[in-house]
Amino acid sequence: MTVLSPFSAGPVRAVLVVHGGAGTILRKHLTARLEAEYLAALEASLRAGYNALQSSPGTAMDGVEAAVRFLEDCPLFNSGRGSVFTHDGRIEMDAAVMDGETGRAGAVTGVTTVRNPVTLARAVLEQSPFVMLAGRGAEEFATFAGTERAAPEYFRTEERWNQLQNQLRRESEESAPLMSLSEDNKFGTVGAVAVDARGTVAAATSTGGMTNKRYGRIGDSPVIGAGTWAENATCAVSATGHGEFFIRHAAAHDIAARMAYGGRTVAEAAHEVIQDKLRAAGGEGGVIAIDAQGNAVLPFNTAGMYRGYITHDGIPFVSIYPD
Amino acid sequence: MTVLSPFSAGPVRAVLVVHGGAGTILRKHLTARLEAEYLAALEASLRAGYNALQSSPGTAMDGVEAAVRFLEDCPLFNSGRGSVFTHDGRIEMDAAVMDGETGRAGAVTGVTTVRNPVTLARAVLEQSPFVMLAGRGAEEFATFAGTERAAPEYFRTEERWNQLQNQLRRESEESAPLMSLSEDNKFGTVGAVAVDARGTVAAATSTGGMTNKRYGRIGDSPVIGAGTWAENATCAVSATGHGEFFIRHAAAHDIAARMAYGGRTVAEAAHEVIQDKLRAAGGEGGVIAIDAQGNAVLPFNTAGMYRGYITHDGIPFVSIYPD
Repeated sequence: MTVLSPFSAGPVRAVLVVHGGAGTILRKHLTARLEAEYLAALEASLRAGYNALQSSPGTAMDGVEAAVRFLEDCPLFNSGRGSVFTHDGRIEMDAAVMDGETGRAGAVTGVTTVRNPVTLARAVLEQSPFVMLAGRGAEEFATFAGTERAAPEYFRTEERWNQLQNQLRRESEESAPLMSLSEDNKFGTVGAVAVDARGTVAAATSTGGMTNKRYGRIGDSPVIGAGTWAENATCAVSATGHGEFFIRHAAAHDIAARMAYGGRTVAEAAHEVIQDKLRAAGGEGGVIAIDAQGNAVLPFNTAGMYRGYITHDGIPFVSIYPD
Repeated sequence: MTVLSPFSAGPVRAVLVVHGGAGTILRKHLTARLEAEYLAALEASLRAGYNALQSSPGTAMDGVEAAVRFLEDCPLFNSGRGSVFTHDGRIEMDAAVMDGETGRAGAVTGVTTVRNPVTLARAVLEQSPFVMLAGRGAEEFATFAGTERAAPEYFRTEERWNQLQNQLRRESEESAPLMSLSEDNKFGTVGAVAVDARGTVAAATSTGGMTNKRYGRIGDSPVIGAGTWAENATCAVSATGHGEFFIRHAAAHDIAARMAYGGRTVAEAAHEVIQDKLRAAGGEGGVIAIDAQGNAVLPFNTAGMYRGYITHDGIPFVSIYPD
């Protein structure tokens, strides 16, 4: 495994980039063993995406879907298997994909029985005239599209269940307000961006949401322009962070717009949005972004972000903490 | 009633602007009497918004909420009472608001029992840390916030019910694909944008969705950056049209971004997005937009758009067809 440095200083050259969430990731919380597991999983997701890119036809969409499917299947990350629990003890997942050549997008929110929400989002893009499908309706569409399902037990991990129980206990002890945002789990999201041999970019994002979330809250992941964006003329973006801030700032589209109308590079645009605009607003998180020339950046304004990229030659670089 | 001309040529000076949907509105479809009813309702919504703006404190948010509540309560428009029916014969409504001073936003999707979805969206903005709430969770939040409810019968109109029956009949006769987009009712949305005495802008959008919609489809209205946006430094926008295109192009935020990074006026930016970008992509619809100086535009690329604005002096102008 190759652990990268210098990483956030400027753009790197890559064909595929992944993240596994940003947030209060501190060395004291991660054992050496768990850290190694995270890095290995990130590297494996990069290889899965790279292999899909190398296959024929091997589109950017194939690459980001394969990378995100791997992360959804891995219980370490808050998406697919290993998703966090809502206040009611349910798992509700969101995902989105966008294709930079056609500008088409697909997104699902609040799905509970779909093994790989990213694959359902891709089916929405490819097999429907719609962009965004919610809840039971989205699951009906999964039946129509033949998307693989899984029972609630499949997604459940003991660690996530205990996180919910701890939060519920804390709430009752503190008589906390009815709508606390979970500090620990605001940032659990996975995503990938890629560029293929034709110069097409794509983005994919998937999440299990927030531990203890209520009221059918939707974060930025499935909101096109907030957590997910792809446009060949500018870039592909997948975000992770405190979703409400990414929605209020249309963060992913704002990066693209600064390139399109302000003449910024992808590195400058992503830096301005994450380190200037969102930081000033108190919006914690990060993004991965790549342009059609393979210039990629992975900025974050939190203590850490699970992240990595893979080069044209198939060499992966993975990291968790700032360089 | 004052019916306006010239309207779309350039910016007008206004404090509040409304739309009641854009689409294939042809003179041959509207009797003189129905046309007069639409114009009177638009004018009344402008006056309701204007009165709220004139009250003390009278914020832009007060203005857009009052105008949209009037349109939601009016059965002529596809929002609140008079919403269209889904494939399953249900009424599912979406709404969003955004405040241009704070950048805060609130949105709800798939609500069925809330008399004024725009008021619930404002409650999300003001009384929760969230931006977007869906379905039953959003209705739980309505209970928490004390938002007025209504039984399904309240929203139901015979005309909308017959529209669904006609579409279902047509589908079965033509053995149409499982996912037809309703040509007649893609564009049923209401919205308002306003600027108040402090120079704060706000936007509100509300819709009953598409007749015969399936799979929990969410359009652009509740998607911040797609159908709704407000930012004092640029403008407030409310969109109506074929929602998938407005999401794929982050249309409302794109207008603001062209102003922020490209130096465009609100009139230029809205024209570029509606008449150039969306028209080229086949995305039918329109927007209303206003900047903090009260420059307002109401462009659309469809046969008509129910629309109007009211000046600082309280003089309303309303129109349906191109000037």
